[in-house]
Amino acid sequence: MNDLSGQNKDISPSFVSDYMEGAHPEVMRRLLETNLERGAAYGADSYSESARVRIRKACNAPDAQVYFLSGGTQTNAVMIDTLIAPYQGVIGAESAHINTHEAGAVEFCGHKVISVPAKDGRINADSIRDTMEAWLSDESREHVVMPGMVYISHPTELGTLYPLAELKAISEVCRKYGLKLYLDGARMAYALGCPENDVSLADIASLCDAFYIGGAKCGALFGEAAVFPGGGIKSFTTILKQHGALFAKGKVIGTQFDALFTDGLYEKIGRKANETAEKLKAVFASKGVELAAPSPTNQVFVLLTQKQLDDLDGKVGFSRWAPVPDGRWIVRFAVNWATSDEEIAKLAELL
Amino acid sequence: MNDLSGQNKDISPSFVSDYMEGAHPEVMRRLLETNLERGAAYGADSYSESARVRIRKACNAPDAQVYFLSGGTQTNAVMIDTLIAPYQGVIGAESAHINTHEAGAVEFCGHKVISVPAKDGRINADSIRDTMEAWLSDESREHVVMPGMVYISHPTELGTLYPLAELKAISEVCRKYGLKLYLDGARMAYALGCPENDVSLADIASLCDAFYIGGAKCGALFGEAAVFPGGGIKSFTTILKQHGALFAKGKVIGTQFDALFTDGLYEKIGRKANETAEKLKAVFASKGVELAAPSPTNQVFVLLTQKQLDDLDGKVGFSRWAPVPDGRWIVRFAVNWATSDEEIAKLAELL
Amino acid sequence: MNDLSGQNKDISPSFVSDYMEGAHPEVMRRLLETNLERGAAYGADSYSESARVRIRKACNAPDAQVYFLSGGTQTNAVMIDTLIAPYQGVIGAESAHINTHEAGAVEFCGHKVISVPAKDGRINADSIRDTMEAWLSDESREHVVMPGMVYISHPTELGTLYPLAELKAISEVCRKYGLKLYLDGARMAYALGCPENDVSLADIASLCDAFYIGGAKCGALFGEAAVFPGGGIKSFTTILKQHGALFAKGKVIGTQFDALFTDGLYEKIGRKANETAEKLKAVFASKGVELAAPSPTNQVFVLLTQKQLDDLDGKVGFSRWAPVPDGRWIVRFAVNWATSDEEIAKLAELL
Amino acid sequence: MNDLSGQNKDISPSFVSDYMEGAHPEVMRRLLETNLERGAAYGADSYSESARVRIRKACNAPDAQVYFLSGGTQTNAVMIDTLIAPYQGVIGAESAHINTHEAGAVEFCGHKVISVPAKDGRINADSIRDTMEAWLSDESREHVVMPGMVYISHPTELGTLYPLAELKAISEVCRKYGLKLYLDGARMAYALGCPENDVSLADIASLCDAFYIGGAKCGALFGEAAVFPGGGIKSFTTILKQHGALFAKGKVIGTQFDALFTDGLYEKIGRKANETAEKLKAVFASKGVELAAPSPTNQVFVLLTQKQLDDLDGKVGFSRWAPVPDGRWIVRFAVNWATSDEEIAKLAELL
Repeated sequence: MNDLSGQNKDISPSFVSDYMEGAHPEVMRRLLETNLERGAAYGADSYSESARVRIRKACNAPDAQVYFLSGGTQTNAVMIDTLIAPYQGVIGAESAHINTHEAGAVEFCGHKVISVPAKDGRINADSIRDTMEAWLSDESREHVVMPGMVYISHPTELGTLYPLAELKAISEVCRKYGLKLYLDGARMAYALGCPENDVSLADIASLCDAFYIGGAKCGALFGEAAVFPGGGIKSFTTILKQHGALFAKGKVIGTQFDALFTDGLYEKIGRKANETAEKLKAVFASKGVELAAPSPTNQVFVLLTQKQLDDLDGKVGFSRWAPVPDGRWIVRFAVNWATSDEEIAKLAELL
Repeated sequence: MNDLSGQNKDISPSFVSDYMEGAHPEVMRRLLETNLERGAAYGADSYSESARVRIRKACNAPDAQVYFLSGGTQTNAVMIDTLIAPYQGVIGAESAHINTHEAGAVEFCGHKVISVPAKDGRINADSIRDTMEAWLSDESREHVVMPGMVYISHPTELGTLYPLAELKAISEVCRKYGLKLYLDGARMAYALGCPENDVSLADIASLCDAFYIGGAKCGALFGEAAVFPGGGIKSFTTILKQHGALFAKGKVIGTQFDALFTDGLYEKIGRKANETAEKLKAVFASKGVELAAPSPTNQVFVLLTQKQLDDLDGKVGFSRWAPVPDGRWIVRFAVNWATSDEEIAKLAELL
Repeated sequence: MNDLSGQNKDISPSFVSDYMEGAHPEVMRRLLETNLERGAAYGADSYSESARVRIRKACNAPDAQVYFLSGGTQTNAVMIDTLIAPYQGVIGAESAHINTHEAGAVEFCGHKVISVPAKDGRINADSIRDTMEAWLSDESREHVVMPGMVYISHPTELGTLYPLAELKAISEVCRKYGLKLYLDGARMAYALGCPENDVSLADIASLCDAFYIGGAKCGALFGEAAVFPGGGIKSFTTILKQHGALFAKGKVIGTQFDALFTDGLYEKIGRKANETAEKLKAVFASKGVELAAPSPTNQVFVLLTQKQLDDLDGKVGFSRWAPVPDGRWIVRFAVNWATSDEEIAKLAELL
Repeated sequence: MNDLSGQNKDISPSFVSDYMEGAHPEVMRRLLETNLERGAAYGADSYSESARVRIRKACNAPDAQVYFLSGGTQTNAVMIDTLIAPYQGVIGAESAHINTHEAGAVEFCGHKVISVPAKDGRINADSIRDTMEAWLSDESREHVVMPGMVYISHPTELGTLYPLAELKAISEVCRKYGLKLYLDGARMAYALGCPENDVSLADIASLCDAFYIGGAKCGALFGEAAVFPGGGIKSFTTILKQHGALFAKGKVIGTQFDALFTDGLYEKIGRKANETAEKLKAVFASKGVELAAPSPTNQVFVLLTQKQLDDLDGKVGFSRWAPVPDGRWIVRFAVNWATSDEEIAKLAELL
C-alpha cells in the first residue's frame, strides 16, 4: 500500500494549497479544443512555439530559450545543475524551497545549498556580499564549496515580494562576484497580479540569468516554463532528458502557456486570487488572528493557538507550517482562482 | 532560441510517433468532468486512490504500491535507482530504451547499463545466466560492476512481445541469481490488446519486482503508472521528490488512469491501434516493402531504400531508425487510437 | 601552471598543520624493512591482516570490518554514502569538517548535510533530538530530507573532546531515532593521548556504527583506518572501487597501522604532541594571548590582533581560521610528534 | 570480518600483478631522506614543485598543470568528470579499464562509457569516426548520450602499444569531432622503456588533452601524476577535494615523482621489467605455451589449459583473465623491477 501522509485530506473548504483543482476553465477549453491536433513531440509543435513567442515578448527577451517542464522541483534542480559548475554550490535563504521542501533534489545533482539567513523569506544583497567576502578571504577556500549562484523566489515561500530596488541590488552583487542569479517563479502570477509588486517579467529577464514562470500553482493543469533570457544554453534538451525532465507531449504544456499568456490571463488569475486573499486577511483581522508574515499575495500566514487549531481541525483544510516558541503555530491558508467567497464566509463562521 | 532538432516536423499524415495527440476523448472527458473538483496533492486524492484500486485489481496484486509519474524516462530512472544498490548495474538489451534513448538518465543516477545482445529487441534467460556466471567466475569481480537488475520492455522497442514462457524463464533466472526484474511497459496497451500476447498484467505482477504501465503513448494526455507489485518500498514519495519526479497534482494523472482502467478502455485503445497497424503492414506488403522486425503491435518497422525515403520525405511523417549495411534504412511508422484509415490510404498512395 | 593557494608556504617554524612531515621514524622504519616483500593487493596482505587484528583488539570489536584508505575526506564521503540510504542526509555541526572543508564531497554523493549549531565544535544529544522531533512533526516531512546519520568528530575541528557521558547520550538518541552514528577520528591519537579524554576506542566501537582512526595527521606517512565495528557491510570493496577509494597497495597502509598499533605507538604520538601543545599554550598565556577554544589536544586556537598577525606573518607558519567581530582573528597553531622545543621557543621570541 | 576475494594470495614466485612490492629502492631512499622535512600541504611543497618542473620538461609542455593523486581509478574518474560536460559520455574500448575493472567509477560521476570494439586492447580512429557519424546522423541524437571524450590506455590493458601514427590519427579525429582525448598511462614506464614504442611523453602531451603517468605500477610506493598539458583547468584542487581525491601530504607523492624523473629512473624501471618479460615469454615459448596477446611490455598473456592451471595453482601466483571457447584460459603473468631471474627459473621448472 502506498505511504501517503496525513497532510493530504479531502476537506471543504480547503486552503491547503493553491494546486488542488485542475486547470482554469480557459486553459481547459484550449486543451480540449486542440486535443485531437497532432503536434511534434518534445516542444517542437506550433503551440509551444506560439507560447515561446508570447513569453519572449512578455519578458522583452527576444533571444530567450524557453522550455516547458512538468514540475517545479524538477525545474529548479535541472536549471541549477545546468548553470553552475559541478563543484559549485547555490546560495539560498534558510527558508528557500530548494533548502527545505525539495527532499534534497539539488544535492542529488551534487550541489551544496549554502544557506543564508532570511527575513520574511527574502535574502538581501548584503548577505550575499558577506558570504562571498568570507569565502574569498578564507585561506582554505579551495576546500570550501565555491558559491556559483544565488537562488531567490518571487513571491517567496512566505508570500512576500522583492521590491525592484532590492532585486537590482542583488543582481548587481551577483554580477560583481560572478554569481548566476536564478529566480523561482512558482507563484509568479500572484506577483504580477499584485498592486504592491513593482517587478515586471522584463525586469526579471534583464536582472536574472534564469527563472521559471509557474503554471501548476497559477491556473495551469500542470507545467512550468523555464526561461534562459539571454539564450546560449547548449544541449538543454539532452540535459532535460538525462534528468528525466524532458516532457514528451510538449504540446500539452505549450498549449496551456499559450492560453495563459493570451489576453493577460496569467496576471488576471493572480489578481483574482490576491483579492480573495485580502478578504481572507480581513476575516482573520476581524477575529483578532495575527498575521505571521506580511504577505501581499495568495498565501496567508497566520498565528493560531493550539485551541484554534483543534477547533478548525477536520472542518477546514490548511497547512501547519511550524511551531513558534509561545506555543502557537504558523499556519498557511492558500487561495487561488477557484476559491469562492462562500468558502471564505464558511471559514469566518468556523473561527 | 531553442535548439529543436529537425526530427519534429508537423506533417500529415504522420506516423512519427504514438504520442502526438492529446488524450483519448474518454480520458479528456473525465479530466473535464472533474476539473473543478479539489483533490489532495501528490496522489492522495480520491481519483488516484480509485485508479490504484483498479490497477491493483487488474494486476491481481492487492499489496501493490502504485504511483503516478509524468514521464517514462523519469519512471525508469527513479525505479531502477530505488530497487538496486548504489553500486549495482542493470542488465539490458543493446537496444533497450535505457541504453539508447534516455540520454544516460540511468548513469546520471550512478548505475552502469550492462548491455547484452538482443534479437528483435528481446533478451533471453540464457544471456542473463551467462552474464551472471561470467561475473561470478571472475576473480576480479569485486572490481566489476555487480549486476543487480534485469531491464526488459514489453512490448520491446521494436514492437515485439515476450512470450509468457520466456518471461517466466527470465524471472526464474533473476530470482536464482538475486537480480530484480523490471519491466518497462511504456506501450503496455499494445501488448494487452494484441492477440499474439499471452502475458497478462497479473503475470507481469507475479513475475517482476517492478514495472510501469504507460499512459502517454497509450491514450493518456500524459502520465505513467509505476507499480511495485509486492509493496514494501519505503519512502518512495521522498525518493520521487528527490529525483524531481513527484507530480504535485496527482489527481490529474490519477483521473486519467481511473478512466483508462474503467470498462477495459486501456486494452481497447491498444487493440484499435494494433488493428490499424495490421492495415499498415498490408499496405507495405502490397508495395513489396520488407518488414525489418516482426512487430505484432502498433509500431511497424520496415526497410526503405534511399529513393523511397526521398519520395516520402516531407509528405509523410516517420522516424529513421538506423541504416543497414545494404544502404537501406530501418524506418519506423507508429500508429495509435487516433490514426485514421484515410491516413493509411494516403500513405499507400504515396508509396 | 597549477593553482596553488597562498596558504601553503614553506616557513620555519611552522604550525600550519599537523601533516607536513613524512612518517614518524618508527613507521618509516617498518615501511623500509618490509619494502621488498611482496604482498597481495587491496588489503589482502599479511601486514594489513595483522593491523586489522590489532585494531579489532584495541576496539574490543572482534567482528569489525577494517579497511585502509588514503585520505580523510574520501573516507568520510564513502562511509557516509555506504551507511545511509540515497535519500537520507547527515546531521553535523555547523563547524563539521564535512560541512566546511570538504568541498561538498558528501553532497557529491547526493546527500544533504543538515547543520545544527555547535558549541566549541561539539553538538549534543538535545539538538539531535530537536532536529528529529521537528522533522517527525512536520506534515511535509516526506518533502524534507530525512536525517539518516549523525556525524561527529573526536577530537573536534576545534581540538575539543566529547566526554564519554555526552557520547553515550548521543548514541542513545541516535538509536532511539534510527540514526546511524559516525565518528570522524582524523586526529584520534590526540584524543587517546590526552589526560582529559575518557573515551576509549572500545567505547567508540560500542557506541558508533562506524568511525575512522586517522593516520595522516597522527604519525603515518599517509592513510586512514575505516572501521565498521559490528561488521555486516556488504560489497564494501566494490563500493570503495566505485568511489575511487580502493587503495591498490594495501600493504603500504597496512604496514603503517600495524606499526602504529604496536606497543602503543599511536597513543604515544598523540601524548607527545599534546604535551607540546601545553607548552605552546603556556607561551601564549605568558604573552597575554587569549585562547579561542578550550582545546586540550594538539591544535591551539588563539585570538590575535591584526598587528600581531602582521608581526608574525612570514616569520612563522599558522592558519587563519576566521575573523571575529572585534577585529581579531581566530588563528590555529598545530603541533605534532615532530614539533621541537626550539620551535616553541622561537615562537615565544617572535610574539 | 572483511570480504577479501580469493585472488589475493601470498604465493612465491608471484606474477599476480606489478604492484605487490613497496617502492623501487631509489624512490624509497628519497622518501627516507626527506622524511623529516616539513612541506606545505596539498602539493604546494618544493618537492612536488620540482617534480612538476621535471614532468613538464619531459612532456615538453611548459604550461602543463600537474597534480599528484593516490590511485588510478580515482585519477581516471576525476579527470574524465572534469574534462567533459555532465551530460556527455566517454568512448572507450570494450576492454578499457574504465569499462571493466573500475566498478562503475565513471558512471558514479554520471557519465556513460560508450564501448567500441577493440583489437588487442586498442581502438582505432575509424571506430571513433563511425561512432561520431552514427551519432550525428541520428535524428534522435538529442536523446542519445553525446560522446565528449575518447579514453585510451598506453600500454593497453593487454600490454600492447599504440604506434605513434595511430595515436596521431586518433588525435586528429578527436579534434575534428570536438572530442577530448584522454590517455591512461597507469603503466607508462613500460611503454617508455620498450624498444617497440615510438610514442614519447612529448607526443602524448601534444596529442592528448589529458593523461596520467602511473606511479604505483611503475616503481613508486604509490601515486599517479595527472597532467593537463595545455593548462587552463580551473578549480582543479577543489574538484579533487570534492571527489575525495586531494592528497593531503602532497610532498610524499611529489618526492617520489621527483625521484622517478631524475636520471631517467622511470624509463629504466620500465626497461628492466620489459627485459624480464622477454625472458618469461622465452620460457613459455620453450614449453609450447601460446601467447594470447602480442604484448611487448611487462604483462604477458598466455593461453593455459585447465590441467596446466591445476598444476600451477598454489605454486605460483598469476591472474586468470577470461576463459576462451576451446576451454583454455587467458592468464596474465606480470613482472616488474623486482622480479628476479630465480623466479622466472622456478616458473620454468613448474611448467
